[in-house]
Amino acid sequence: MANTEKYVEEIIDQEDNFSKWYNQVILKAELADHAPVRGCMIIRPYGYAIWENIQQHLDQRFKETDVVNAYFPLLIPRSFLEREAEHIEGFAPEVAWVTRGGGEELEEPLAIRPTSETIVGHSYARWIQSYRDLPLLINQWNNVMRWEKRTALFLRTSEFLWQEGHTAHRTLDDAEERTRLMLEVYRAFAEEDAAIPVLAGRKSENEKFAGALRTYSIEALMGDGKALQAVTSHNLGNNFAKSFEIQYLDSDGQRKYCATTSWGMSTRMIGGLIMVHGDKAGLIMPPRLAPHQVVIVPIWRNDADKSKVSGLLERVEKMLKRKVRVKVDVSENTPGWKFNEWEMRGVPVRMEIGPRDVQNNSVVLVRRDTRAKEVVSVDALETRLPALLEEVQSALFQRALAFREQNMHSAETYAEFKEIIAEKRGFVRVKWAEDSAAELAIKEETKATLRVIPFDQPEGGVQGNCFYTGKPATCEAIFARSY
Amino acid sequence: MANTEKYVEEIIDQEDNFSKWYNQVILKAELADHAPVRGCMIIRPYGYAIWENIQQHLDQRFKETDVVNAYFPLLIPRSFLEREAEHIEGFAPEVAWVTRGGGEELEEPLAIRPTSETIVGHSYARWIQSYRDLPLLINQWNNVMRWEKRTALFLRTSEFLWQEGHTAHRTLDDAEERTRLMLEVYRAFAEEDAAIPVLAGRKSENEKFAGALRTYSIEALMGDGKALQAVTSHNLGNNFAKSFEIQYLDSDGQRKYCATTSWGMSTRMIGGLIMVHGDKAGLIMPPRLAPHQVVIVPIWRNDADKSKVSGLLERVEKMLKRKVRVKVDVSENTPGWKFNEWEMRGVPVRMEIGPRDVQNNSVVLVRRDTRAKEVVSVDALETRLPALLEEVQSALFQRALAFREQNMHSAETYAEFKEIIAEKRGFVRVKWAEDSAAELAIKEETKATLRVIPFDQPEGGVQGNCFYTGKPATCEAIFARSY
Repeated sequence: MANTEKYVEEIIDQEDNFSKWYNQVILKAELADHAPVRGCMIIRPYGYAIWENIQQHLDQRFKETDVVNAYFPLLIPRSFLEREAEHIEGFAPEVAWVTRGGGEELEEPLAIRPTSETIVGHSYARWIQSYRDLPLLINQWNNVMRWEKRTALFLRTSEFLWQEGHTAHRTLDDAEERTRLMLEVYRAFAEEDAAIPVLAGRKSENEKFAGALRTYSIEALMGDGKALQAVTSHNLGNNFAKSFEIQYLDSDGQRKYCATTSWGMSTRMIGGLIMVHGDKAGLIMPPRLAPHQVVIVPIWRNDADKSKVSGLLERVEKMLKRKVRVKVDVSENTPGWKFNEWEMRGVPVRMEIGPRDVQNNSVVLVRRDTRAKEVVSVDALETRLPALLEEVQSALFQRALAFREQNMHSAETYAEFKEIIAEKRGFVRVKWAEDSAAELAIKEETKATLRVIPFDQPEGGVQGNCFYTGKPATCEAIFARSY
Repeated sequence: MANTEKYVEEIIDQEDNFSKWYNQVILKAELADHAPVRGCMIIRPYGYAIWENIQQHLDQRFKETDVVNAYFPLLIPRSFLEREAEHIEGFAPEVAWVTRGGGEELEEPLAIRPTSETIVGHSYARWIQSYRDLPLLINQWNNVMRWEKRTALFLRTSEFLWQEGHTAHRTLDDAEERTRLMLEVYRAFAEEDAAIPVLAGRKSENEKFAGALRTYSIEALMGDGKALQAVTSHNLGNNFAKSFEIQYLDSDGQRKYCATTSWGMSTRMIGGLIMVHGDKAGLIMPPRLAPHQVVIVPIWRNDADKSKVSGLLERVEKMLKRKVRVKVDVSENTPGWKFNEWEMRGVPVRMEIGPRDVQNNSVVLVRRDTRAKEVVSVDALETRLPALLEEVQSALFQRALAFREQNMHSAETYAEFKEIIAEKRGFVRVKWAEDSAAELAIKEETKATLRVIPFDQPEGGVQGNCFYTGKPATCEAIFARSY
């Protein structure tokens, strides 16, 4: 699939134009392509392999908390969406409607799911009878559709892939506990598997999910100093239970409404990986999610070299096969071309094997993040390589954390706030008296939004006044410009 | 989720009403439920766990043949579908159309993919430049939609889950080879993982895929003597390459059309599993695809028993955890109720642990298929249980094979053929002079269709005349009534 011309061309520097860099790297690394339908994307094999790794890691974390998978239908009757008033108000402008099927006009238009709370609610009402059926903990991996006006590959597409978890509980406390548990699962995934440090907390009333009691999120800082909401976890309270009559017979003989939750992470996370870790040479993939953890580039100038190197190459490949994800590039391109290509694609470690290495029974390992080289004896490879991958994983997290800390500001006054947002970007922490109108005014004037009211609040409560309204502060909040 | 009343109720005997048995067992085992949109289904966790196991086994088999996964968009412009004349003719009546999105009427209606040859063709034309880019071997796991008039859970639903593989090659021979290779991958999956014996061969002109040069399939025999087409693999020749301009520059400097293939297996396979292996007590799951391979039922009458049994139960569970998929049923139901429940759900092996077993340091294993019991010492369990599961896997295949052989008939004359179809069901092998009109007449009169022209033909060619037209036979063909 390689078109040499295209690759040799340099990609633009991140610092010159971050969003252009972002698009170039996605297209050149063959992560995704634009679809013929506006705002949709094709996820190409290299990009989809990242998604498969995300799925595998996250799915295992879900299952460790007793979540099981299922599949709910793509099409949802209009009347279902309308049953929860805030929900339809939030989603109606973004819905794609099926109006014809099997050669006939449909009596009722069917929505392509923008999310599945309604159809899940309908099903849970049928399946749940008694408190013994609770909690019900179901997740689904699927595609959803939200007709977006402004789109960007991975970050905001009309169709995207995600998982949406839906749980039902006896009490509001149980639902709250699960909402927070799933946020913690996501935090652990983001920080440990994706090497992305995140801020966890509650969303403001303005920013919460349409129909939720409370929404929590984790927020990450991208390389250009803008924030990205990586996932959300919603405590839906009794709202959907009341709209869909999800009731259970409790042990005291009373019929009660369930409390429900929902939580999701999407292919947007791939956009986050690109923007947190990438550099001007292209992608840098955290080893746990990298499609190829190691690329082996054999170095030979003639057939004599080749026959020498091939033996060791095969031995090493076989040795590592079940331990790490190895790609061997034996294409006809030059070693230099291959180095550039796989750096751009973000493979965390490159292994070079040349005639001299054969003589020394060793190989050369080169880290993508620091470009540090080391010579490793073939006998030590099985232990050294996995350890090196963990070092890269950890270094990427530490680097991203340091960048976020450098870009974590605080502001006492609105003037100070505006200056930071305009000149420095990053997160700005402020004292805040929760106020939706003030929040909208700030957004209007600065394009910064309230990302999260973080869990870590000053001990003993906030002292002092809101940076914007001057009213007594109720919490500390974190603002940023965001994707 | 258990509603005791419902389960104690017996399910109908297969022999009395096979299709009613089929529906009852799906609903009672909680494999699936009807969706509010006509013809769609909800796949419940127990059913979806089967699909996850199918995906895992099949995906690994694909990857061993160098196939990679990707994701193509759900929505396809109408003009794309129209570009391949036979293709649109075949699919137009079944398409669901999106005509509104984001609050506006769309300029061009968008089809929810009934299959993805067109959008894949459009992409391959962009991605393939040179012979070095070939073969291109991509699969996707997704949902598709075909507006069906008559539907049945798993077997024929308007939306279903499947995988669709799409490959592009330099030559027609390469495409033919891949088409046949994938059929062989499916055959191995069906026989080795699903324990379903299949007949492999070519479809007639009438039954081939809309737009294909040739379609191959594997056909299985259900418990009621009707056939089920389990998968298809299509050699598309240059048809889609010409419609979508999928060309490559060959090593001789000429621009040439690619040859392409496509191949798919769907959630219909779950229907096949149910109908091949089930018996009047309910499902029987082949161990390799079973959500739970073993269910442990502790047997205790009082707290003293319970404390004795619990220790062994935990030890056994821990011992087996990473080796087999274990479900432990510690619900408040009686052991007898649990036996029935898990038999109905088709768990291949039941393990009973009671106070006497604790004394003897042993457990009781009961096979679902034969109900044979054996006492196994706890120390031997780690080796005995996996071996027993393989025995069950193999026995299920052998039993299904014997059933198919009993129901494999041959007919010399049309009168004989009609009698067999009407009275015995099963497959009927005949001498055949390929003739589409004759095939349609036979279908009209007997409801039997040409399932497959099997690969195993008489050595040296067919002697004699067609059972229906009397013309010199060109092959042997296999007919059956089918789903």
